[in-house]
Amino acid sequence: MALARAMAVELTVEVPDALITRYPGIESDVVADVLDVVEVESGIHQVTLALAADLAGEDLNRLLNLLLGNCSMMPGVRLVDLHLPDQLLSRFKGPRHGIAGVRELTAIADRPLVATVLKPRGAPVQDLVRVCREFATAGGDLIKDDHNLIDDDLESFRDRVVRCAQAIRESQGDRHVIYLVNLIAPSQQLDARLEIALEAGADGALLAPWVIGLDRVRELTGRWPGVYLGHPSMSGVLTGGASSGIDAHIVHGTLARLAGLDGSVFVNSGGRFPVTRTEGRSIAAALRQPLANLKPAWAVPAGGMRPERLPEMIEDFGRDTMMLMGGALLTAKEGIEACTREIVQQLEERFETAREM
Amino acid sequence: MALARAMAVELTVEVPDALITRYPGIESDVVADVLDVVEVESGIHQVTLALAADLAGEDLNRLLNLLLGNCSMMPGVRLVDLHLPDQLLSRFKGPRHGIAGVRELTAIADRPLVATVLKPRGAPVQDLVRVCREFATAGGDLIKDDHNLIDDDLESFRDRVVRCAQAIRESQGDRHVIYLVNLIAPSQQLDARLEIALEAGADGALLAPWVIGLDRVRELTGRWPGVYLGHPSMSGVLTGGASSGIDAHIVHGTLARLAGLDGSVFVNSGGRFPVTRTEGRSIAAALRQPLANLKPAWAVPAGGMRPERLPEMIEDFGRDTMMLMGGALLTAKEGIEACTREIVQQLEERFETAREM
Repeated sequence: MALARAMAVELTVEVPDALITRYPGIESDVVADVLDVVEVESGIHQVTLALAADLAGEDLNRLLNLLLGNCSMMPGVRLVDLHLPDQLLSRFKGPRHGIAGVRELTAIADRPLVATVLKPRGAPVQDLVRVCREFATAGGDLIKDDHNLIDDDLESFRDRVVRCAQAIRESQGDRHVIYLVNLIAPSQQLDARLEIALEAGADGALLAPWVIGLDRVRELTGRWPGVYLGHPSMSGVLTGGASSGIDAHIVHGTLARLAGLDGSVFVNSGGRFPVTRTEGRSIAAALRQPLANLKPAWAVPAGGMRPERLPEMIEDFGRDTMMLMGGALLTAKEGIEACTREIVQQLEERFETAREM
Repeated sequence: MALARAMAVELTVEVPDALITRYPGIESDVVADVLDVVEVESGIHQVTLALAADLAGEDLNRLLNLLLGNCSMMPGVRLVDLHLPDQLLSRFKGPRHGIAGVRELTAIADRPLVATVLKPRGAPVQDLVRVCREFATAGGDLIKDDHNLIDDDLESFRDRVVRCAQAIRESQGDRHVIYLVNLIAPSQQLDARLEIALEAGADGALLAPWVIGLDRVRELTGRWPGVYLGHPSMSGVLTGGASSGIDAHIVHGTLARLAGLDGSVFVNSGGRFPVTRTEGRSIAAALRQPLANLKPAWAVPAGGMRPERLPEMIEDFGRDTMMLMGGALLTAKEGIEACTREIVQQLEERFETAREM
């Protein structure tokens, strides 16, 4: 099919055939091979292209450019599946901690983790500190800054992170509660902010690949030891289309792991965003499936989750899930502490564990 | 309208109303104001939100997160227009050269520039050098690497750029032909590659904001003196939707200038991509319109342009345009040199200029 060949050329050499045939090695080594074209629905064709792994290099800038690049401007072209050879995967470190590493840090062996969010922007720091204290006291496992919680300068960032981290450490008892800062900030400050946060006692960061750059995330996670979760801000432009962009399991699963994220926050069904349970499950599967030596990573369904949705979330995502409750927990009638205790207890009973003390 | 309020909350504080009302300052200072909701077509509403400029900070990571962020995951939400206050714009340097600066560098006062592309990947360096030589000898104005022309390591990159730059300098006579390298490479190498290229005699770089990160582009253009053009790889996920993403004039016009790009390459109608002339014109208008102290930037229509399309391109884009011919020029029957001369001559006649020698 002409479109398949056009895609194969567009993604690799972007020149007329006359120039391709001038160099015989280019057709065989550089231009993608069209392996298959199948009409899967009326008018919808599944095109399978094989690309030389060497073209992708060892970074996600080259990979994105190669996987969708200029084809993003061809209407009706969507990347729906991706098989990466071990030769390519072996060039990526992947998640430093992944599922097992975070379990080790928190000493929670076999139930989902309970996570919450520090917000809203504009609340006094002392109120965020109080959330940290109550959530950690009650047995919560992970606290992250909201992606909209952005401190204007390094000093106010340092001050806030120091106070939040201190409150968590004072309240966590003999457990280790993970604290992740939000890293939406000027590009030239990302490393400095992360260094400040790690020194201040945070465990890592929340990184939004589709805001700050997917390969910039790989660079940060590779350079700074820590726990990292991906945030989906801006990712809807990729995942939202029916006939454009990239499938959610690739965006929040495969590419997130290649970028070194230990888990992916994604909007889940039943919250504020109209997505399907199938999509969420496909993301979780991609986060956990074997991928050469890359560790499996956490599913973090989010976007308006409430305690009463726990049974469905357990059904959809199982054990290796962070149950992230933001607004619902922060506004719980019974208070943050009681609500957190209840969630933890519910998960412990369901997964029949006792916390390892 | 409920959706408008939901967007206003989602982009700023992302918490239930109960938490917003707890802090009176948040509703007035942080949550966006819904200024207007108008049904523009049946079932399609234009929502106008006012956001506090301080939330956007001085970088494009915060701005993107604020402009679309989580709303990218709301189906049917598209950013179609953007008015930025001078207070915000004044925090951005914008293009270093812009239209006037590039005219000064090339000493081409008042006609469109003629540009070409080095490709395909896989061609021997001596063939790329030959393109440089012939194009510069014939009076071409700007040569850029193709966005798919990626050298695996720094040494081969340096070697190729040195040879291409040298060929251009030897052939340009007493003119200055601009040479831009492609910077799709691992995130941690972008600064190093740019430094190497500038030392090797290149004038700047081609940067793909939607691959390497929009604010990463701002960081690079702010740090390294040079001429920079934006490449649209991956941008179709933003611009391609009818009811999602961001309008092309914002992506390739306003945001490109905020990122410090001196011009934007965009796919034009009549080439390989099915876009409209209206879209191209809207991009050019956004590149040139007054925007506080940010310099106007070059329109670079591309994506399969051929010499016979010059009259329409002139009609659509006028004087301050780079006429970028890649494949058509490289495969011209009469040869690169003759084809380049013909294009330059056609533009000189049309704009009644004599080159200033």
